[in-house]
Amino acid sequence: MARNLAQKLIASHLVDGDLSPGSNVAIAVDQTLTQDATGTLVMQELEALGLTRARTEVSVQYVDHNLLQADEKNAEDHEFLRSASRRYGLWFSKPGNGVSHPTHMQRFGVPGKTMAGSDSHTCAAGSMGMLAIGVGGLEVALAIAGEPLRIRMPEIWGVRLTGELPPWVSAKDVILEMLRRHGVAGGVNRIIEYYGPGLAGLSAMDRHVIANMGAELGATTTVFPADSAVRAFLRAEGREDDFTPLAADPDAAYDVEEHIDLSDLEPLIARPSAPDNVVPVREVAGTEVSQVVIGSSANPGLRDFAIAAAIVRGRQTDHSVSFDINPTSREILEDMTRTGATFDLIAAGARIHQSGCMGCIGMGQAPAVGKNSLRTFPRNFPGRSGTREDSVWLCSPETAAASALTGVITDPRDLGQSYPELELPERASVNTAMLVPPLPRERAEAVELIKGTNISALPDFPPMSDELAAPVLLKAGDNVSTDEISPAGASALPLRSNIPALAEHTFARLDTAYPRHAREHPDGHIVIAGQNYGQGSSREHAAITPRYLGLRVVIAKSFARIHWQNLANFGIVPLEFTDPGDYADIGVDDVLRLDDLRSALPSGDEITVRNTTRNRSFRVRHRLSPQQVEAVLAGGVIPLLASRRT
Amino acid sequence: MARNLAQKLIASHLVDGDLSPGSNVAIAVDQTLTQDATGTLVMQELEALGLTRARTEVSVQYVDHNLLQADEKNAEDHEFLRSASRRYGLWFSKPGNGVSHPTHMQRFGVPGKTMAGSDSHTCAAGSMGMLAIGVGGLEVALAIAGEPLRIRMPEIWGVRLTGELPPWVSAKDVILEMLRRHGVAGGVNRIIEYYGPGLAGLSAMDRHVIANMGAELGATTTVFPADSAVRAFLRAEGREDDFTPLAADPDAAYDVEEHIDLSDLEPLIARPSAPDNVVPVREVAGTEVSQVVIGSSANPGLRDFAIAAAIVRGRQTDHSVSFDINPTSREILEDMTRTGATFDLIAAGARIHQSGCMGCIGMGQAPAVGKNSLRTFPRNFPGRSGTREDSVWLCSPETAAASALTGVITDPRDLGQSYPELELPERASVNTAMLVPPLPRERAEAVELIKGTNISALPDFPPMSDELAAPVLLKAGDNVSTDEISPAGASALPLRSNIPALAEHTFARLDTAYPRHAREHPDGHIVIAGQNYGQGSSREHAAITPRYLGLRVVIAKSFARIHWQNLANFGIVPLEFTDPGDYADIGVDDVLRLDDLRSALPSGDEITVRNTTRNRSFRVRHRLSPQQVEAVLAGGVIPLLASRRT
Repeated sequence: MARNLAQKLIASHLVDGDLSPGSNVAIAVDQTLTQDATGTLVMQELEALGLTRARTEVSVQYVDHNLLQADEKNAEDHEFLRSASRRYGLWFSKPGNGVSHPTHMQRFGVPGKTMAGSDSHTCAAGSMGMLAIGVGGLEVALAIAGEPLRIRMPEIWGVRLTGELPPWVSAKDVILEMLRRHGVAGGVNRIIEYYGPGLAGLSAMDRHVIANMGAELGATTTVFPADSAVRAFLRAEGREDDFTPLAADPDAAYDVEEHIDLSDLEPLIARPSAPDNVVPVREVAGTEVSQVVIGSSANPGLRDFAIAAAIVRGRQTDHSVSFDINPTSREILEDMTRTGATFDLIAAGARIHQSGCMGCIGMGQAPAVGKNSLRTFPRNFPGRSGTREDSVWLCSPETAAASALTGVITDPRDLGQSYPELELPERASVNTAMLVPPLPRERAEAVELIKGTNISALPDFPPMSDELAAPVLLKAGDNVSTDEISPAGASALPLRSNIPALAEHTFARLDTAYPRHAREHPDGHIVIAGQNYGQGSSREHAAITPRYLGLRVVIAKSFARIHWQNLANFGIVPLEFTDPGDYADIGVDDVLRLDDLRSALPSGDEITVRNTTRNRSFRVRHRLSPQQVEAVLAGGVIPLLASRRT
Repeated sequence: MARNLAQKLIASHLVDGDLSPGSNVAIAVDQTLTQDATGTLVMQELEALGLTRARTEVSVQYVDHNLLQADEKNAEDHEFLRSASRRYGLWFSKPGNGVSHPTHMQRFGVPGKTMAGSDSHTCAAGSMGMLAIGVGGLEVALAIAGEPLRIRMPEIWGVRLTGELPPWVSAKDVILEMLRRHGVAGGVNRIIEYYGPGLAGLSAMDRHVIANMGAELGATTTVFPADSAVRAFLRAEGREDDFTPLAADPDAAYDVEEHIDLSDLEPLIARPSAPDNVVPVREVAGTEVSQVVIGSSANPGLRDFAIAAAIVRGRQTDHSVSFDINPTSREILEDMTRTGATFDLIAAGARIHQSGCMGCIGMGQAPAVGKNSLRTFPRNFPGRSGTREDSVWLCSPETAAASALTGVITDPRDLGQSYPELELPERASVNTAMLVPPLPRERAEAVELIKGTNISALPDFPPMSDELAAPVLLKAGDNVSTDEISPAGASALPLRSNIPALAEHTFARLDTAYPRHAREHPDGHIVIAGQNYGQGSSREHAAITPRYLGLRVVIAKSFARIHWQNLANFGIVPLEFTDPGDYADIGVDDVLRLDDLRSALPSGDEITVRNTTRNRSFRVRHRLSPQQVEAVLAGGVIPLLASRRT
C-alpha cells in the first residue's frame, strides 16, 4: 500500500500498534533533545530512573533558555546540566552555542530518524525528513533510557504546496496562513505533511520556520520530504553523507487534504495575543511600534537575519523603536558576521543580543505596558513577553525590518525598495567547539552530579486514592497555554529546577491566590478548563507544580496533546466532559466527588462526577492508554517505575 | 604661580572659593552625564525644581544600565527618560548605543571642559583633559539647572609616569598597581593627575581605563593632559576641531607626589572581593575559572576587545569556561566587527552580549556560587555580580583572555605566544543615529513626561527636628559600599524609579531585616559605620531609600565623598567620630540622643551625642558647608528650594 512520508517514518520505527488513526503506537526513538528549562528535570528523572548511560543514538542537552543569569540560579543549572551530560553520556551544548532546534538540525539532524524532545518546537526537525515530536520531559527521560515513545496515532494532514512565494513574502507567511485558516487547535491529533511542487522554492531552513510553528497549530508534528534542498543544507553543514532521500509514495493518500498556492500569499501578521489572530499586514499598517525583535527558533536561519540586514542596510531604524536582534546560534552569528549582516544591523541601530531564546521565552526584552512589539517569534500568548498587558505581534523578518525603519507596522512591499537578492555562502561556519561530546563510558560513570542550591529534589507523589472529594479551585477558559499554568519569563524561568519555589508562580496569570488556596486544601483540589487546555510549551512543570500544590484532577472540554500526557505522567487524572455543556454548571469552590477511581479508570468507561455543592451529576471520560492508567493510579510514572524496582 | 592641570581646570571654572585644599569651591559646569539607573531620579528632580530647559552646554541622558528588560519596568524607564530628555533639552542616548563614559568621551568630550555626572565613573573623562566629577543625581540636576558644583577643594596628587609598559601588561595593570599601593580610600579628597614621559605610550582610551578606576581609589577625579594622544583620539572620532592642548605648567607642584615606572609593572589581579585586594597574577596562577567577562567602562576601548580577540584567534576557550563579551557601545561593536575581532571572539567560543554595562552592574552574567569569575570590570564588591557568595576577580583583557583559553587563572606571559601587535583603524565608525538630539525649545516645552507604572513620585521629607533620640538599627564595618546600602543587580536595579519598592532592598546584603526594623521606629533611627562609608557607586538611592525608611543620622569614622554629599542632599546628618575609638562603644539597639541640632549644626562646633542605653557620651563633628547645613535642616535640598519658591 502506498504510504505518505509520515506513515513511512512511523512504520520504520514501530515497536507496537498499527497505523490507523487513534490507535496507541509505540515508536523507537533514535535521538533526543532537551533544553535547560526542561532539561534539569529530565536529568533528575534519569537519576530517579537509575539510568547508567543513554541508550539513544544521539542525545543532546542544550542550554538556550536560561541565559540572563540575573543571579546564581542560571549558572548553577548550567553546572548541573554539564555534570549530568557527562554522567549519562549526552552531548552538552554550552550556553551561547545556540537555540536547540536549528542547532540540532545543523549538527545532528538526519533524514529518517526519530526524535523526542522536551520542547514543543522539537517538531522543527521535521523540516529535514525527521519524525520529531515534542513531549514532556519524563518521556524524553524514558526515551534516553531506551523506552519507545507512546502516542496515539494521529491523522496525517497533507498540505500540497504549489506556486512560488512572491517578493517580500517568506516562509513565516506560509505558517501564518495555516494559522489564519485553522487556528491554534487546527492541528490537534494530526501530523502535517507538506509536499508538492511549491517545495522547490523553500530551503531547509525555510521549512524549519513552517515545521517549527506547527506546534502553534497544536499538531503532533510536521514532516517535509528529504529532497535536494535538504541535501544542499547538509552539504553546507559538511554532512552530506548523512543525507538520505525520503518522500511519500507517489500515490500516497492523506487523512485530510489541504492546498496552498504560495503565489497567492501576502505578508501576514498575528495580532495580540494569539498566534492565530492573523490578518494581512496591510490591514494594520500604520500602527505605532516601539520594539521590533528578530530571532527565535521560528525564524532562525542566516537568511532570516540577512534579509533584515539587507532591508535596513545604509538606513536607520526609527528613533522611537528598539530594534533587537537575537542571533540563533554561534554558527549563525559567525555567518552573519562574516557576510556583513551583523555590521549592517548594528549600523542601522540594532541591539545585538547573545545567541539563544531570549525574548521568545520572556528572558529579557520585555516591552513597556501596552506598547506594540513586533517579533518574528512563534508565540504571543498574553504576558509571555514578561510584560503584563503586553501587546505582541508575530510576523516575518521582512515585515519586522520594514516596521523598524518606519516606526509603524509596515507592509514591506510599501517600502519602495526592490526585494533584496541575497547571496548566502554555500558553506556554513561549522564550529563544534561549544558542543562537548559524551564522555567515554568508563569515565562517565565516575562523574558526580553537581547540584547547586537551585536544584531541588523531585517531589514524592503518593498513589491515586480510590475516592476523591475536592473543591474546584480554578475554572479556566479555552486555549489556556502552559505559559498561563506555569509561566516562563525572567522571574519564574530560573526556578525551573526548584519545584517548591516555582510552584508559587502556578497560574500566576489567571489567579495569583491559587497557591495559597491550594495549600488550604491539603487533601487535593480540581481544576476545570475549556477547550485545548495546556496548549503551547511542553514544560512538564505545568503538571508538576500544580500537582505539588495538590491538583489531582483536571476536567476540560479538550486537552492539548503534550500537556495531557504530562498530567498523566505526574499522576493527575485528565478527564473530558462527555457533554461540554456541563462546563457551564460548575463554579469555583464547588466540591466534586469521584468514586471508585481505581476500578473505573482501568475499565475505560465513562465516570460519573457528583457536584455535591449543586447536587447534580455529570459524565466524563478519559482517553488514557492502559499504561497511562497504571501510571496515574501509581501517582505517576516515576512512582510506578520505582514500585516495579522494589 | 605655576599651576598643575587640575588647578588650571578648576581656576578656569571657579565661581566661588579659592584653590587651597579643604576650602569650599563652586565650579561652573559645562556638561552633564546621567545614566538610566540614576537618571530617572534626576529627571524627577528637574521636574521638582521646575526647570524649563537645561542651561549647560551639553547634557546627555544615557541608557546603559537597565537593559535586561526582564519585565516592563526597564522599558517604562526608557520611555520616561526619552520623554524627559525631549522635555528638558537633553541629548538622549538610546538603549544599545553604549556605556555612558566611553560614549561621552567619543561624542562629547572636549579638553578643558567641566562635567558633573550621576555616576561614580564620570571621572573617566579626565582621560582627555576634562575635569569630570561623579556626584549625586541631585547635584547633576542642579548643574543642569545652571548651578555651579560645590565641593571641598581636594589635594592634587601628581603621579609621574616613566618608562613603557612591557608586553602583556596594559593600562588596567597601572590602575591595579595604584590600588595595590594605596587601597580603596587612598585617593579620598584628592584629584589624581598623571603626567610625565610614560604618557607617550598610553592612548586616550588607555588613560580612560586609568581615570575610570580612580573612582576605586576614592579620588574626587583624575586628570590627564590633553596632548597628541588626545588629538589623535579626537581625529579618529572626526572631531579634531574640538582639540585644545592642555598640560600642567612645566614647574607646577603637587600636594602629594608619586612615581610609577611603567617598565616595572607586571600583570596584576584583584582577588575577591575588593578592588584593592591586588596581587601579581603569577601568585594565583592555576586557580580554576568558570567565567571570564571582557567589557565595562573600565576596559571599554576597541583595543581592549581587539587584544583579547588576537589572543584567542584560532583557538578555543576551555570547555569549562563561559567566555562573555560585553561590547561597550554600538560604535565599538561596529569597529570590532569591521576589523574582524567580533568574528574571532565568536569563533573562539564567546557569548556576545548587547552593548551596555551588563554584568558590571549585576545585570546578567551572574556566576554560580563560589565559582571564580575573572572580569575586566572596575569593581568586585561582595554580591555585586548578582550572586551571593560570589568570587569575582578584576584583571586586564590580556589576563582575562589567557585564562579563558586555559580554564585557570593564567599570567598571559605564560601562554607562549608573542604579544599580538594590533593594527587598529585610524578612523572610528562614527555613528550618531542612536543619539537623539535635544528638541528645539518651542517644541520641547510642549512635551509631556511619560510616567509608566514604574515611575513613583519623589517622597516628601520633613525638616530636621531640633532634638533626636533614636535607636541604632545597624552597625556597619569599614569600606561599606553603596552596593551594600542599596544594591544594584537584576532584582533591585529595575526599581530605581520606584523608591518605596526599592527601599525594601535597603542594606539587603548586611541585614535583610533592616526595612522591617526601620518601620517599627517611625520617629527615626541611626546607622553607625566605620571608615570610608559609602564608597563606590554614586547612586543617591543609597541615601534616599534609608531616608525614606526613617534614617536621620549616620555616624561614621569617615565617609566616601559622593555618599557623604548625597546624605546631606537628602536631609540625613553625616557625622564623624571625633575619637574613632568611640565606635567600639556603641551597639545595635542603643538609643542615642542628639540635642539642639538646629543650632549646633550651623555653629560648626562639635556635638555631643548621648548614648542613653549605656549612659555615656561621645563627641562627633560634621564637615558640612553652610549650604549643606541649611539643606540638612530643611529636610534636604529639594524641600529647601521648594521653601524658597513659596
